[in-house]
Amino acid sequence: MTKTLIRGCDALTFEGTKPVFLNAQDILIEGKRIAALGKSGTLGEAKKVIDAQGMLAVPGMINSHAHVPMVLFRNAGPDLNANDWFNKVIFPLESNLTPEDVYWGAMLGMAEMIEAGITCVADHYFEMDQVAKAVEQTGLRANLAWAVFEHQGYERFEQTLEFVERWQGKAGGRITTWLGPHSSYLCGPEFLRRCAEEAGRLGVGNHLHVSETREQVTLSLERYGRTPVEVVAEAGLLDHPAIFAHCIYPTESDLELMRGRLVGIAQAPKTYLAMAMGLADLPAYLERGIAVGLATDGAVSSTTLDLFEQMRLTALTQKDKAGDAAVMNLDTVLDLAFQGGARALRQEALGNLKPGMLADVVLLKQGRAAAQPVNNQAANLVYNLGAGDVDTVICDGQVLYQHGKHLTLDLDEILKEVRSRLPRLMNKDLEKKIAEYPA
Amino acid sequence: MTKTLIRGCDALTFEGTKPVFLNAQDILIEGKRIAALGKSGTLGEAKKVIDAQGMLAVPGMINSHAHVPMVLFRNAGPDLNANDWFNKVIFPLESNLTPEDVYWGAMLGMAEMIEAGITCVADHYFEMDQVAKAVEQTGLRANLAWAVFEHQGYERFEQTLEFVERWQGKAGGRITTWLGPHSSYLCGPEFLRRCAEEAGRLGVGNHLHVSETREQVTLSLERYGRTPVEVVAEAGLLDHPAIFAHCIYPTESDLELMRGRLVGIAQAPKTYLAMAMGLADLPAYLERGIAVGLATDGAVSSTTLDLFEQMRLTALTQKDKAGDAAVMNLDTVLDLAFQGGARALRQEALGNLKPGMLADVVLLKQGRAAAQPVNNQAANLVYNLGAGDVDTVICDGQVLYQHGKHLTLDLDEILKEVRSRLPRLMNKDLEKKIAEYPA
Repeated sequence: MTKTLIRGCDALTFEGTKPVFLNAQDILIEGKRIAALGKSGTLGEAKKVIDAQGMLAVPGMINSHAHVPMVLFRNAGPDLNANDWFNKVIFPLESNLTPEDVYWGAMLGMAEMIEAGITCVADHYFEMDQVAKAVEQTGLRANLAWAVFEHQGYERFEQTLEFVERWQGKAGGRITTWLGPHSSYLCGPEFLRRCAEEAGRLGVGNHLHVSETREQVTLSLERYGRTPVEVVAEAGLLDHPAIFAHCIYPTESDLELMRGRLVGIAQAPKTYLAMAMGLADLPAYLERGIAVGLATDGAVSSTTLDLFEQMRLTALTQKDKAGDAAVMNLDTVLDLAFQGGARALRQEALGNLKPGMLADVVLLKQGRAAAQPVNNQAANLVYNLGAGDVDTVICDGQVLYQHGKHLTLDLDEILKEVRSRLPRLMNKDLEKKIAEYPA
Repeated sequence: MTKTLIRGCDALTFEGTKPVFLNAQDILIEGKRIAALGKSGTLGEAKKVIDAQGMLAVPGMINSHAHVPMVLFRNAGPDLNANDWFNKVIFPLESNLTPEDVYWGAMLGMAEMIEAGITCVADHYFEMDQVAKAVEQTGLRANLAWAVFEHQGYERFEQTLEFVERWQGKAGGRITTWLGPHSSYLCGPEFLRRCAEEAGRLGVGNHLHVSETREQVTLSLERYGRTPVEVVAEAGLLDHPAIFAHCIYPTESDLELMRGRLVGIAQAPKTYLAMAMGLADLPAYLERGIAVGLATDGAVSSTTLDLFEQMRLTALTQKDKAGDAAVMNLDTVLDLAFQGGARALRQEALGNLKPGMLADVVLLKQGRAAAQPVNNQAANLVYNLGAGDVDTVICDGQVLYQHGKHLTLDLDEILKEVRSRLPRLMNKDLEKKIAEYPA
């Protein structure tokens, strides 16, 4: 079994939900797992040594909701509210996508995530065989859901079931697959009930958009006399693992429906600010023990696939929303950022640097003037460090990125492929849309 | 006169308030000024050539309100509201400062600003001879104000007048000096009137904190029957140039008082979010033609001296506050970020890349996966590029930073000096405070 020794780093670990920073540590990786973590010099030697003096080791970040291949359309619809963003930009542009486009978009998005210290992503998109192929090649870990609209019909839905079976546990166990009904507004109660049943049969979860805007809640009440959360709960989706993307507008009784269930809430505040959607009251989730993870969403709304940015925005915007600087304090936001995603994805062996955990480890440089002096390690991580400080990215024990170089992909080749596709991809025909946003 | 040719970059310029991105440009710098900007290859040759292929040239960023040496105390008071932040952390810690501490703090803060593409700063702090010395050495441009509280007395105030005269126009013209009454809550009407008179006599402006929180407005109404803006206006501060730091809570009539005057509003939303102070309604300023510039504030509240971050937060938070994604659109935020600071500081030769302007130029790499593909140059600059993409920083025609290396300072030496001072500096005695925050 390959042994790798990370030598001399500081390390972010967790005791329960509490972040604990350790200094001058070594981390021993054996195969896919962390074998030991201890005072530097006490863990013996290994053939492969990574000198991490002056660096901070953190658990690989977990992106609990993304549409990775959308990096192709990055910044295509700035300054737009949700309706125009969907109907005048995204849904028309997405009608241009071929499977090969999705592959190259996935490759670019994975390069971006690796550069930003993300080692695991719950991706929700189309042509997911292509995304799975990219995950296999780049060495990332992923939970993949093939997004499907009700209007595409049950035949298409059944193809997504086949996808789930085809890729479950593949890439050496790094890939898990779930179902991906698009949303509670583009899939009706019967369709969602079928998703719940199939999830039960396959032993998987569902990943979908729920209660993103006030207008969606109003629409749901008009259509069904129920909130979006009530609709998906009645359909049975809370009887299986689930990721609810965004879920900004739960009612009090929605929150009670979610309490104690296997649901994780994926939060991407950069999207919510950019599209003026409003912000979720995260303490309301956390007080009830409902898992909350960070997400990048897609790069047309959030513009980047960067969880450092989403972590910082989560802390800052929740303080602002509550009108209290003590809200979303350092301990809370670090737990949410690193362990919350693992809870949301039901990945118990991720989110912490402890013996026995999967070896998803990121090393951060701390040398920029903006990150010195380090008077408070937790604050420095939340408010000062970022994607630009990522030195080394390890996933499943394999080094994917080191000292600014990708080891599993060729970024120049990817950019060449992506650029060659842009003239066709960005050619927008408003008559051709993959769906119609109704709210 | 030294000639430098920047070759082959894209460039952000402005026609009036409108951002215009030009591609494949050369920029010719002669001495301190931009001599020409034109299609690459058309401006002839120069002895010194900077290859900027694939990079984006932007005007050096202008930080319209900072307390640079506070980087010493970076992250010393996280998760605190204003009263505790001032009275339990900052004012006690600042009683530890020696002039030499201020010098080394200024050097570290300037290193950070240079790394982040900031070429000009309006700094408001103590022991400003030390800051001026750091400006002289690092090659930055600065407007310096010696902060003074009324309780320190008129003798101390008069020393700050001497500072103004001592450093005005020094460092080859890169330094300008203004007066720095701390605020409308720690300086009374008579003291502020004296500041206005002296500003008139010296031909300078005033730089102070105004209307930062709702509580300050209430306090001012209780004390004087007037809002903070009314107090400073009656004292005569609007009859001379002025920077009002933060000014989050102007009334409608305050806004009318500021209309058409030489006042600039400095905005640091990262501070406002971190301390849950609320956010200013920036369109209310912009509709009235009142200058708004971006600011980093100090690194204990904002944690970084990074205007990319403040620019992005300004766009995102104003959309959220207005509930409309069309608010603070790309054109508006780019004008505010690059030209707004020049207006606030009354620096007409800054903020744009045009022949005749002072040669403060920053080159940004665009190669990270997170900044590709470039479907929209303006959005990419606002939402994707950042301090980590800064390749080259030129101020007053001099290269201060290139390819990750400082040319005018020794960061290792600065960090060594700063770290050696920390045990003493961070030793907090609540009985020793430089002032008492009253609101």
